[in-house]
Amino acid sequence: MNSLICFGLLVFGTGVCLGQKPHPCRSPPLLSGSMTVTAKDGHAWAFAKYRYDAFGQRIRLWEFGKSDSKTFHLNMLFLFREGLVYNIDYRNKTCQKNVLHSTFHPSEIPRNASLLSQVILGGSSAPGEGLLVNTWTGVVHETQGKYMATVTEFGCIPVSLLYYTPEKGWVITSYFNAVTGIEDPEQFIPPSFCTDIQTEEETLDFFSAFL
Amino acid sequence: MNSLICFGLLVFGTGVCLGQKPHPCRSPPLLSGSMTVTAKDGHAWAFAKYRYDAFGQRIRLWEFGKSDSKTFHLNMLFLFREGLVYNIDYRNKTCQKNVLHSTFHPSEIPRNASLLSQVILGGSSAPGEGLLVNTWTGVVHETQGKYMATVTEFGCIPVSLLYYTPEKGWVITSYFNAVTGIEDPEQFIPPSFCTDIQTEEETLDFFSAFL
Repeated sequence: MNSLICFGLLVFGTGVCLGQKPHPCRSPPLLSGSMTVTAKDGHAWAFAKYRYDAFGQRIRLWEFGKSDSKTFHLNMLFLFREGLVYNIDYRNKTCQKNVLHSTFHPSEIPRNASLLSQVILGGSSAPGEGLLVNTWTGVVHETQGKYMATVTEFGCIPVSLLYYTPEKGWVITSYFNAVTGIEDPEQFIPPSFCTDIQTEEETLDFFSAFL
Repeated sequence: MNSLICFGLLVFGTGVCLGQKPHPCRSPPLLSGSMTVTAKDGHAWAFAKYRYDAFGQRIRLWEFGKSDSKTFHLNMLFLFREGLVYNIDYRNKTCQKNVLHSTFHPSEIPRNASLLSQVILGGSSAPGEGLLVNTWTGVVHETQGKYMATVTEFGCIPVSLLYYTPEKGWVITSYFNAVTGIEDPEQFIPPSFCTDIQTEEETLDFFSAFL
């Protein structure tokens, strides 16, 4: 009976009966876009532009935000292969270089993630009214933190990430204005005034850019 | 100079120089879809399917959720023109009828709202990867509550609503799977076992369905 219904539907060209179950996916290796991060029940937030290069394992961030009633501006370059993170101040032409504790994680839905839902944000009655997204949940092995990650069905573009640990509470990240590719690869090269500086003793991890 | 650049861009057919500033808009008068509501820092939540008829000023909700550690199921019909709200229990064939305190507000961005941002959720490098949305902020005159409403640029389909009052804190609503139209208009007619019942003394407002 089911296959008869499927045949009927296929006449209309929908193709929904072919078992198109969503699969964990990996985002494009080169991405440029923007994101907002909210934590501490809204008392800490940041807005960032990012450039992401999974081939070279490099991330660039231009960020401003507020945490514990203090505003901050950050201009950071993460070079995961070299294990270095640069905190760059163009106005004063100064630079801080730290050892980067984190290993590079590509933007992806892990294979052991569980599909929570597939929905259309907005609507589906006309073109441009909606976005088909998949939401996945799981636990990060290293931290035992829970996550709920939403990516587009087409292209595996990140849309939002909810991450929970008892220490940090909920950290909510929204992604938007993503473009596949890197317009200016020089943004991954530390500026000249960063070359001859000493590495600081303090080790940083990737999350230190946000919280 | 600007117009020269505009001309150059128009050659590529983008048309971005025509001053396409987003305007406050009204959602389609007939909508069917789903929504989630989160309040009390995540301690209260609800999932609901809705049918919305702005012509007849009627809303139907099938809802389940959790508030103060208690789960609840609700099946509600709001008839704003008649000033009545029905709480329907199909299993026991019982019904509760209350006077509805709220007036009908169509799903729209008020004319005095301020545009906060226009972004693409997800990305714009390929079809199906992103959704162009406008986010508006303002104050609800009656309650002095602040809101941040996101709707699609094309179609004015609701995507999310953040609403804040000092008493209730943040109430976050996400909308998805919207379809323009009503598949079964009979869902706005109270079932037969609701017809001969007394109206309860307690007056309800629309928000009592969620919090």
